[in-house]
Amino acid sequence: MEQPSATTLPHHPKSGEQQPEGSAASEAGAPAAPSKSALKKAAKEKAKAEKAAQRAAQEMAQAQASQAADTAKDLYGKMPDTDDFPQITNFPQFDTEDFYEKEVTVIARVDNARVQSAKLAFLMLRQQGKKVQAVIFAQEPISKHMVKWTGGLNVNSIVQVTGIVKKPEIPVNSATYSTMELHIRKIYMIAQAAQQLPMQVKDAERPPPESTEEGQVDAEGAPIVTLKTRLDNRILDLQTETSQAITWISSGVAQLFAEFMLKSGARWIFTSKLSGTATEGGSDVFELGYFKRKAYLSQSPQLGKQMCIAGDMMNVFEIGPVFRAEESNTHRHLTEFIGLDFERTFQRHYHEVLSFAEELLVFILSELKTRYKDQIDIIQKSYPKAGDFRLPKDGKALRLKYMEGIALLKEAGVDVSEQERFENDLTTAMEKQLGRIIREKYDTDFYVLDKFPSAVRPFYTKSCPDDPTFSNSYDFFMRGEEIMSGAQRINEVEELEAAMRARGVDPKSEGFEDYLGAFRQACSPHAGGGLGLNRIVMFFLGLPNIRLATLFPRDPQRLRP
Amino acid sequence: MEQPSATTLPHHPKSGEQQPEGSAASEAGAPAAPSKSALKKAAKEKAKAEKAAQRAAQEMAQAQASQAADTAKDLYGKMPDTDDFPQITNFPQFDTEDFYEKEVTVIARVDNARVQSAKLAFLMLRQQGKKVQAVIFAQEPISKHMVKWTGGLNVNSIVQVTGIVKKPEIPVNSATYSTMELHIRKIYMIAQAAQQLPMQVKDAERPPPESTEEGQVDAEGAPIVTLKTRLDNRILDLQTETSQAITWISSGVAQLFAEFMLKSGARWIFTSKLSGTATEGGSDVFELGYFKRKAYLSQSPQLGKQMCIAGDMMNVFEIGPVFRAEESNTHRHLTEFIGLDFERTFQRHYHEVLSFAEELLVFILSELKTRYKDQIDIIQKSYPKAGDFRLPKDGKALRLKYMEGIALLKEAGVDVSEQERFENDLTTAMEKQLGRIIREKYDTDFYVLDKFPSAVRPFYTKSCPDDPTFSNSYDFFMRGEEIMSGAQRINEVEELEAAMRARGVDPKSEGFEDYLGAFRQACSPHAGGGLGLNRIVMFFLGLPNIRLATLFPRDPQRLRP
Repeated sequence: MEQPSATTLPHHPKSGEQQPEGSAASEAGAPAAPSKSALKKAAKEKAKAEKAAQRAAQEMAQAQASQAADTAKDLYGKMPDTDDFPQITNFPQFDTEDFYEKEVTVIARVDNARVQSAKLAFLMLRQQGKKVQAVIFAQEPISKHMVKWTGGLNVNSIVQVTGIVKKPEIPVNSATYSTMELHIRKIYMIAQAAQQLPMQVKDAERPPPESTEEGQVDAEGAPIVTLKTRLDNRILDLQTETSQAITWISSGVAQLFAEFMLKSGARWIFTSKLSGTATEGGSDVFELGYFKRKAYLSQSPQLGKQMCIAGDMMNVFEIGPVFRAEESNTHRHLTEFIGLDFERTFQRHYHEVLSFAEELLVFILSELKTRYKDQIDIIQKSYPKAGDFRLPKDGKALRLKYMEGIALLKEAGVDVSEQERFENDLTTAMEKQLGRIIREKYDTDFYVLDKFPSAVRPFYTKSCPDDPTFSNSYDFFMRGEEIMSGAQRINEVEELEAAMRARGVDPKSEGFEDYLGAFRQACSPHAGGGLGLNRIVMFFLGLPNIRLATLFPRDPQRLRP
Repeated sequence: MEQPSATTLPHHPKSGEQQPEGSAASEAGAPAAPSKSALKKAAKEKAKAEKAAQRAAQEMAQAQASQAADTAKDLYGKMPDTDDFPQITNFPQFDTEDFYEKEVTVIARVDNARVQSAKLAFLMLRQQGKKVQAVIFAQEPISKHMVKWTGGLNVNSIVQVTGIVKKPEIPVNSATYSTMELHIRKIYMIAQAAQQLPMQVKDAERPPPESTEEGQVDAEGAPIVTLKTRLDNRILDLQTETSQAITWISSGVAQLFAEFMLKSGARWIFTSKLSGTATEGGSDVFELGYFKRKAYLSQSPQLGKQMCIAGDMMNVFEIGPVFRAEESNTHRHLTEFIGLDFERTFQRHYHEVLSFAEELLVFILSELKTRYKDQIDIIQKSYPKAGDFRLPKDGKALRLKYMEGIALLKEAGVDVSEQERFENDLTTAMEKQLGRIIREKYDTDFYVLDKFPSAVRPFYTKSCPDDPTFSNSYDFFMRGEEIMSGAQRINEVEELEAAMRARGVDPKSEGFEDYLGAFRQACSPHAGGGLGLNRIVMFFLGLPNIRLATLFPRDPQRLRP
């Protein structure tokens, strides 16, 4: 393997703990003009960096002079050119005790480096957020130079370490694998980190504070890193054990959704995200230049997936980005999120599809609990709700009618008179309260409301045949917050045109010809729904903010990294 | 099930075959202003539609008068309100002979309806492109009215038919299930199609002509439907047996990719498609308004997936849209396509990742052949190359160096002097010729070229440590056309900055801070690649145009449906 620029220069940076927290972070931030205080901070840091460079040059000269005499010089620094590669052990393998007294080689980041004395140094090694302690002691063939080099490694550098696994006398509580310790024999640089990081990975391990002010410390004196700083430095933030676990849960939700859909005989579709018309609603759509005309970013795969049903595909699903130009700056809104969409025909009643969707969610949520138990346990350390998501004991989703939900709220003394007039949907506060009532009464955090008032649903929603005040539509909730909206769709063109006119939409207006054409050419009765992946992750784990459940979140303020 | 607008009106449209082909199609087209001839055509059609409406009204009156006396009136027309639902049989179940003399109920489209006499009518029923013949004969309790209604059904309407399965005396060659025939007992309307369709589904079953002129007929007198008409009417086009099979292959490629990646321990990621800067290259990027600033659509998940690697995710993959504002109007370019991207760290050499990618492709292509044999057989009827994709017999991908590819071309007399100066990539014609040479010599349609000249690869590509003229990069080919590009990426920040400067890109220019920051904080050596799903489908099946392998294709001219 080529590591042409790996360096053997000895450095003596201060340990990560002494570095100012989040200092460079706000500068690495948005491309907007820096503030006065940011400029001042930058100037200060420049001076500091220059001083550090002078010191490093001095040390390099000293080191080169003494290296000639270093008995250990092939045991550390730049990786020697050799075809004799040791086998690499990954940290999760350390879960057994078979490794005691064996030599292993690992590739890991330096989470922390500490020189104890001229003859002794400690490293905390980190791999995907998990930690193992390593120790180096100057004793033939290991030289004091090697100890110094090791103890002076820049935090976050990636090294290859060969050592003997020992059982420490006292468990290393700060390590993930606390009953083992690596006694270093060889250590080579794989990729060197800069001397100063914009934030420390360990400071991002704790939940972000509610306040957005930088520079505070918590009760134990540890720096508090705001969500903004963490997201500005998302790459470091992803390196925490918690982020590693959350990204696994996201991956798991997508996997479980695809698994269930494919097993049901569904076809995986990819509808276009670029459209020539903004059919789904005016102001919330992003407009872009498309050669010499305009195009619009898809606000949902709704029309596309229904056209697939009209195209006889019967049972389809899609996993892809959904774009919303909403100026919502809340804990649960994004301008781009991942939609898990499905649509399928039914034979007799839309409840065939509703039952299917309920089974889908019960499958995803219960499999998450089983397959990702380790990740959930880790997340729970920072976000205590992560482990307590309740599912119905009998494995069957709780389904209530909208009116039954209203009755529960009314019983609890909530003023739902507006909602009983069927012109307004439940407010977020009502949804949350209903969530608490249902948890209390039915012991579940996942439930379904069916038969919403027609007035609060999109024009293409099928009304109840026996009472058009209500519709064959449903919402799914987790911990009292909506994660899915779905319905039977109107599949008859005259009915659809009448529904459009009733909403003041002209069926002849631009952009609807393909959609209406689909039904004019006959389309089977069908229903479906659209889930938000990020919301499922957020509410399943009880995270305080959807951005923590999103790899690179986008909101009205944020377009990077 | 509610079918409020299902109608029992008797109609006597001409059989689908007499309808003019592709007539309304061009009008249903782009939202641009209609041409003069289109307006004239529209006026003509309006008159025709009015006449048809008059005729229908007349017939309805006659029908209502006689319906009172119809002995069969509960056996056809509008579905009766009942909870006594029969079990529904799907066409693929007909593959056994167990059904002879049994009563079954199916839900299917009317592919064709034909009145033979006052007492006899035939239907061709179609389900996901597959066909079964049905026959109705006036004999107690079936009335002549019922025969007339059945024979007069609008083509493409969806009906529920109950009947007895019989073995026809002579196999019905025009049906998919030729050794069975359904003798109709009951037939109800599920969804009625308009009397006139913009094109006939069966005319879309044949490959599109090379010419783009409408209104031609082929050697057997059947109308020729151009690709434009088919795509303008993509919903009808999707209903063909061939399109049904192709969309299954697309679904299969995504599924097999995800399957292989997940089995390898990879994490499923979703990087953002909206970015604050256009970092990947100026002119080919779509720009959009993002609240009060500009945003850009992602041209690839390259930077995002590398940032995940820097974020210690080790092995990641993504399935999602990729946007290219290229004004390319070719058979293999789209402005939006589905990218299958992966990126992973390696321990010693980028060939660890290259071998992984080769195994991935061999897995996808060989599993497609096994799991989708039925679909391939169907597609082969229209596109003869579909069944002959060759894979290496030993299951190991053929890997040649770029220079070995050049040598093969040179041997064949191709002038490759430009390519030997390493400043130009292979031309498409050269790639195709190399594909033919390799098929001849190695009996494979899938192969890999490794070690491309550095000059023809992006700035972040790692050069060969022993000869910087070449790079640790590779392309994958199917039938001589590129389906994947990949490489080891530079993971050292100084090296990356130097590479940028060498290409005239200022590392300090806007938009690179997060990307460079990722490497400044140390990143493991890694490599990856990006596959085009649509191209894999196209070249695997030997389709003449990528639009046939795309659900709703987008190109500089097309933004609908």
